[in-house]
Amino acid sequence: MRVIVLGADGYLGWPTALHLSTMGHDVIAADNLIRRRWDTLCGTHSLVPIAGMKRRVLRWKEVSGKQIAWERLDLMSLADTTALIAQYQPDAVVHFAEQRSAPYSMISGAHAAETQVNNVIGTLNLLFALRESGPDCHLVKLGTMGEYGTPNIDIEEGFIEIEHNGRKDRLPYPKQASSFYHLSKVHDSNNIMFTCRAWGLRATDLNQGVVYGSGTPETDLHSELRTRFDYDDIWGTALNRFCAQAAHGHPLTVYGSGGQTRGFLDIRDTVRCVELAILNPPDRGEFRVFNQFTEQFSVNQLADRVRAARLAHGLETVIEHLANPRIEMEAHYYNAKHQHLLDLGLVPHSLEDSLIDRVIGMVERYKGRIKPELFLPRVDWRFGGGGKMPAPSKRRRVPALRSVSSLY
Amino acid sequence: MRVIVLGADGYLGWPTALHLSTMGHDVIAADNLIRRRWDTLCGTHSLVPIAGMKRRVLRWKEVSGKQIAWERLDLMSLADTTALIAQYQPDAVVHFAEQRSAPYSMISGAHAAETQVNNVIGTLNLLFALRESGPDCHLVKLGTMGEYGTPNIDIEEGFIEIEHNGRKDRLPYPKQASSFYHLSKVHDSNNIMFTCRAWGLRATDLNQGVVYGSGTPETDLHSELRTRFDYDDIWGTALNRFCAQAAHGHPLTVYGSGGQTRGFLDIRDTVRCVELAILNPPDRGEFRVFNQFTEQFSVNQLADRVRAARLAHGLETVIEHLANPRIEMEAHYYNAKHQHLLDLGLVPHSLEDSLIDRVIGMVERYKGRIKPELFLPRVDWRFGGGGKMPAPSKRRRVPALRSVSSLY
Repeated sequence: MRVIVLGADGYLGWPTALHLSTMGHDVIAADNLIRRRWDTLCGTHSLVPIAGMKRRVLRWKEVSGKQIAWERLDLMSLADTTALIAQYQPDAVVHFAEQRSAPYSMISGAHAAETQVNNVIGTLNLLFALRESGPDCHLVKLGTMGEYGTPNIDIEEGFIEIEHNGRKDRLPYPKQASSFYHLSKVHDSNNIMFTCRAWGLRATDLNQGVVYGSGTPETDLHSELRTRFDYDDIWGTALNRFCAQAAHGHPLTVYGSGGQTRGFLDIRDTVRCVELAILNPPDRGEFRVFNQFTEQFSVNQLADRVRAARLAHGLETVIEHLANPRIEMEAHYYNAKHQHLLDLGLVPHSLEDSLIDRVIGMVERYKGRIKPELFLPRVDWRFGGGGKMPAPSKRRRVPALRSVSSLY
Repeated sequence: MRVIVLGADGYLGWPTALHLSTMGHDVIAADNLIRRRWDTLCGTHSLVPIAGMKRRVLRWKEVSGKQIAWERLDLMSLADTTALIAQYQPDAVVHFAEQRSAPYSMISGAHAAETQVNNVIGTLNLLFALRESGPDCHLVKLGTMGEYGTPNIDIEEGFIEIEHNGRKDRLPYPKQASSFYHLSKVHDSNNIMFTCRAWGLRATDLNQGVVYGSGTPETDLHSELRTRFDYDDIWGTALNRFCAQAAHGHPLTVYGSGGQTRGFLDIRDTVRCVELAILNPPDRGEFRVFNQFTEQFSVNQLADRVRAARLAHGLETVIEHLANPRIEMEAHYYNAKHQHLLDLGLVPHSLEDSLIDRVIGMVERYKGRIKPELFLPRVDWRFGGGGKMPAPSKRRRVPALRSVSSLY
């Protein structure tokens, strides 16, 4: 199949492009490279040095004999996006190309607006591009389990049968997202669902859990094929950050009491889930949702797993509970379904001590690059990032968004 | 109470400002006047000539002895919005300031993006402005009944108790909006709900039905106090457009079979509902939803009501069924609750033949201004407004939205 991977410069986009290429698909990797710019703006960086996209694609050709096309593309341009779809006529588009940090979206009003404009309008442009140039193409969109929040009932995969006052309907599962980032994905889901109904597009919304792991078999083949690894408060996610903290001898920073429970998965399963979705497309007009995670853990359980893995090597790890900078329940019911991808053949990697060892081992190789001040949360959900955190770079006034004036 | 009315230049914003002023509130009217610009761009116009905002406010002072402050404001500017809230310290902000046409939002990708950016980011900026400068202020936000779509179960007011696999929760009512405009209001609702939880803001989402009527007692006081009246395919809503068509001797244009059922209300009830919400604010941290309509009608029932009102004067009216340019069910279950505003004391105007007569009478005074070509739908939900409609003004390339680059 011919597949465009949007957001191919990211932590998951790049390994996905490599995996699909390995599996014999014809892959086009596209990105606007803004993630590297956001690193500069946030004073953050990938712990693992990463090559540029041109270099990566060349190295991949050399190592695997396979060609990945590289296209610099900004989804904010409807014209460029439409042209890309028209040029390649892909069977599927995998859409990772979003601002994907909840803390980033909570820094200020400008960051919230940037996140929602980038994600919602980028996706909207992609939908119009598909209507125009690729109506049969399968959109595989990365959503997040965070769209659901933590309801007191089982979380279904996208839809729920509701019986109410003697009548029944199958309706979109209610969403209760808890950051402007997570909300942007809710907005996307609603926009995509509508275009499947209105235009007959076909889409799979992959509501993904928190991903952990330092790479895949393909990214391990060469130093220039490695994917980024984030350990900081803005871009680093729970388990990866804990592994980095453990390797550095820093306490594991649990937010609040640590009873927050979420779905997690290994990065090697992410790339396989995406391929499973591509190999089994929905019908025209169908909008389907897969909950893409393999195991549920509370934050405390994760921290304990990391501590136990260290203890097996005779190493002590301190777990520290910080005041929770987020707005979230710290003790709650959580039971989320994730059957669809298993039904399509996913054989999950479960979280093993050996994986934790491997991640910590990788971090240890780059220990000298760690800036421990980036371990601590700088963004508070209540107040933003304003006076509450060090400004890692010069503050600059964000220009106000202007309306698009438009004629028809 | 001190109340800022955002979108005070619009069909409903202006009468609301006048009504609140009449009731003794201290009113600040704000608008960026973009609605008048959109008219130019769409080749549309208010059937009733309307005065400029400065003129209106002066005339109101003269007629009523009451002062309404006028502020030109674009919600796209977070700084200006924050400054406005800080300056006036309002008890309530009534937010009508959105692009409010479903067909407009469906013209093209650029129009969809403009609608969602204008509405979602405008509201987001307002939420940040309230957090910063008016955390106790009550946000009264105009939503739409169209957020719910047409589910096969009763529509509740914003939330629904769901029992599922032996557990229960009260969750946001599932939304199934059917245009990028309606979706923008769903996005708004989700963003607002989150900030009530995260920041302790207080908000009322008024999910309003389709409004009909040519004015209120206040707008009838002087020709320079009149509010706009839209009869065209882009801005005109069902009953108002039917009245204009009847007055002009044009067939009433029903889209599809006409079984589409919606909630409707008289413009005189809109202004009272808004005041009832203001007088009865929610608690800090509360996000509540009122379904703001008084009666349900199918489009066929509305057309029949207009025909009957004409027949009482011996006039024949033709009803014409056009191919439906929208994506919507034309026969469906529809039972939407609307108890909250009645509980607060709303005494609804029901739709009477005399009201239809009054609207038609008003249209007849301005019959010479009608452009009948604007009665027919130019925007198709499947294909947009592209080649399917006459271009009322020179086509211009819409500049692509750029990401907001931002530091912290």
